[in-house]
Amino acid sequence: MNSAYRTHLETHRNTHLKELKDLLSIPSVSALSAHKPDSKRAAEWLADSLQAAGLENVKIMPTDGNPIVYADWLHADSDITALIYGHYDVQPVDPLELWQTPPFEPDIRDGKIYARGATDDKGQIFMHIKAVEALLKTEGKLPVNVKFCIEGEEEIGSPALEPFVEQNKDRLAADVLVISDTPMLEKGKPAICYSLRGLCAMQIDIRGANSDLHSGIYGGGVANPLHALAAILASMHDERGRVAVEGFYDRVRPLTEEEQQAFRDLRYDEEALKKELNVSELYGEEGFSFLERTWARPTLEINGIYGGFQGEGIKTVLPSEAHAKLSCRLVGDQDPKEIQELIEKHVYAHTPPGVQVKVTRMDTGRPFETPYDHPVIQAAMRAYEKAYEATPALTRMGGSIPIVEGFGRLLNVPVVLMGFGLPGENFHAPNEHFHLENFDKGLITICEYWKELAGIKMK
Amino acid sequence: MNSAYRTHLETHRNTHLKELKDLLSIPSVSALSAHKPDSKRAAEWLADSLQAAGLENVKIMPTDGNPIVYADWLHADSDITALIYGHYDVQPVDPLELWQTPPFEPDIRDGKIYARGATDDKGQIFMHIKAVEALLKTEGKLPVNVKFCIEGEEEIGSPALEPFVEQNKDRLAADVLVISDTPMLEKGKPAICYSLRGLCAMQIDIRGANSDLHSGIYGGGVANPLHALAAILASMHDERGRVAVEGFYDRVRPLTEEEQQAFRDLRYDEEALKKELNVSELYGEEGFSFLERTWARPTLEINGIYGGFQGEGIKTVLPSEAHAKLSCRLVGDQDPKEIQELIEKHVYAHTPPGVQVKVTRMDTGRPFETPYDHPVIQAAMRAYEKAYEATPALTRMGGSIPIVEGFGRLLNVPVVLMGFGLPGENFHAPNEHFHLENFDKGLITICEYWKELAGIKMK
Repeated sequence: MNSAYRTHLETHRNTHLKELKDLLSIPSVSALSAHKPDSKRAAEWLADSLQAAGLENVKIMPTDGNPIVYADWLHADSDITALIYGHYDVQPVDPLELWQTPPFEPDIRDGKIYARGATDDKGQIFMHIKAVEALLKTEGKLPVNVKFCIEGEEEIGSPALEPFVEQNKDRLAADVLVISDTPMLEKGKPAICYSLRGLCAMQIDIRGANSDLHSGIYGGGVANPLHALAAILASMHDERGRVAVEGFYDRVRPLTEEEQQAFRDLRYDEEALKKELNVSELYGEEGFSFLERTWARPTLEINGIYGGFQGEGIKTVLPSEAHAKLSCRLVGDQDPKEIQELIEKHVYAHTPPGVQVKVTRMDTGRPFETPYDHPVIQAAMRAYEKAYEATPALTRMGGSIPIVEGFGRLLNVPVVLMGFGLPGENFHAPNEHFHLENFDKGLITICEYWKELAGIKMK
Repeated sequence: MNSAYRTHLETHRNTHLKELKDLLSIPSVSALSAHKPDSKRAAEWLADSLQAAGLENVKIMPTDGNPIVYADWLHADSDITALIYGHYDVQPVDPLELWQTPPFEPDIRDGKIYARGATDDKGQIFMHIKAVEALLKTEGKLPVNVKFCIEGEEEIGSPALEPFVEQNKDRLAADVLVISDTPMLEKGKPAICYSLRGLCAMQIDIRGANSDLHSGIYGGGVANPLHALAAILASMHDERGRVAVEGFYDRVRPLTEEEQQAFRDLRYDEEALKKELNVSELYGEEGFSFLERTWARPTLEINGIYGGFQGEGIKTVLPSEAHAKLSCRLVGDQDPKEIQELIEKHVYAHTPPGVQVKVTRMDTGRPFETPYDHPVIQAAMRAYEKAYEATPALTRMGGSIPIVEGFGRLLNVPVVLMGFGLPGENFHAPNEHFHLENFDKGLITICEYWKELAGIKMK
């Protein structure tokens, strides 16, 4: 038997998708300063949408970076207040030529919506607005009080959010923080994530001679920054796939027997993944499974390298510069700032003669973990069961939402990661998309969650 | 006492520089196919200029690539015929932002002309045309017969020239091949180069998963092509700066005691070079001087690397591709095709698990050497003495003019490398320029060379 809100969601589905396309058309790429005005537009779009949904106190609040959108509805019979966090900024889109349809011209095909931000995270924050709207329009009220906090710099490490939370502790005070920015286990298998890896990012810039040189005249006699970069980067891993930076693993907690068993019980299909990615084998730290490597072990990944000639054909140049961008995923008690320090030391110690090296420290975020027997998580499990007719898995995640740990710590609230994306939806890659099946079931899950949450005993 | 041709050169200097600026304004970059029409324009410009200088049989001859410009004047009293080779194509200009004035808007400042191609090689081939013109206009004839052969693909390895020479052996037949595309030793110290290093170029393309991946979701569990690239490239050199590719040095002839002494006698100023390039130390193969490393030892240089995110900020991506371009300079009996084979084997042997690698073989050119006691070189020495009032040094060179070896072999003629560039003139780099002092003295050297050459006994 359909409740009124479900009928509302069905009859308004086309309108919702049309609105979502509008939001996804705004190229709010936070990493590129040229897109600043687009971030402002995305914030304004969300504020309008929140207002129309029936939320109150809608505000676009300035920060040192992109603005934060706030809204609330605080008239519930229950004492419980949920804070919903999301982000309207998106990753850059290059390499653009690999997109089948342009990243900011949303296209629905095969039951999926394709666009940058479709799943990470515009699509998911949009669902929260529409869930609230559905309940308010059909029931006249919400089971719990809700607050929205939607930022525009998550993809660059949320530099403005912590100060914002510090300054707005009362405004943001809540009993639970709900974030929809994590993937399900696989199609039809919802998951609640209770742990995220931390993050630290860095850039390495190497300089040789003061100008590009002719490789015939100088080649073999002047240090080549590209050789130096290759040597430095190659020194960061050993042949067993382990990070070779001294002290890197010191604060990593080994997995317990119980957790290892829980991972195995998920029966993750590594063969299917190999096929999906078209790789001959999965590769990583020796002695660990794919889930262990990506959920519970730290990594150091080079995210980009560049230097010298990149055009068609050959140019016999001895370049004057070489660059690399890298980031680590962190677990347990690893401190991102300490890891940056260890890597910086490693880079200096492994720099060959004849070049100068500069290391720039960038984004950081601590690893995060929530006890999975907390009532706010148990309520979420019941909500998923109603929408998906399946018990959600309790999982960890390899990605980082740097603000989760800080947010939870500053507001002293438990965090529920209730994500509706799928692993193959090309987060951060060309052809990002979002399955509409999870758009529909996710909306129901959220509505049911507010109902379940109203019934629990807090503290 | 000035001869008539010298007066002609002085009175026409401004006109000549204006014409040279016209030629340098044509962006005839052979490595980029978009510039194909510019190559055609440059060829037409040269044909017009040769015609105006008084040369005959001027032809723009088609090839599979850019056309070759031919012209001759065959009415000398002497039996001797000189073939002049040069190229009108230029290197790419990136990074464009490092140019003080745009590469194709020639600018004269501080007695130098700045533009892409100023010294390599448009400026120098232009001088040959003007030298012939000066003699024809003032003396009505040339001391020797001359032929011009100016191609447009030297910077991409002259793919069309060898077949052209094969098909035009009679047309190109000569007693000496003169090429002005090599540098002097330093300002005021002319040099005749009797040896060039060979060349082979390659590209390495690495592929991991079939799409860029989110480094949080997959990082640590799927091979990163950038790590594989760094490992492969780092494996190509050892800690002593030697190339670590098996068999690489097998056909390198060690320097004789006599040659080592001749190198030392040049008293090359390594300290001055360090200052000029702003490097803390010169770096290369252990146990060799800078001149030995760059003139007589082979090298393997990475010319460019790229893969993953290169923009502002950070992008937590695990890229699906990584690329490198590299080239070797070869000496002695090293065979470029054999070296490509050795490197390809090395790459395959050093590719880590989980990625696919593709190696593409590109340009090749054999090393070249001419006996320096040959009369055509001795005549050149006397011509330099007249123009510069200094004895030219006999040198080797680290660069490659791939066609020199093939050209000399196919036509069975000695080659004289009579170059007027200076080492610091940014060949292949931003802010390429040419000193006008050597423009003036070079013109005189060329005119005097034809006079000296008329007097020698060949064979």
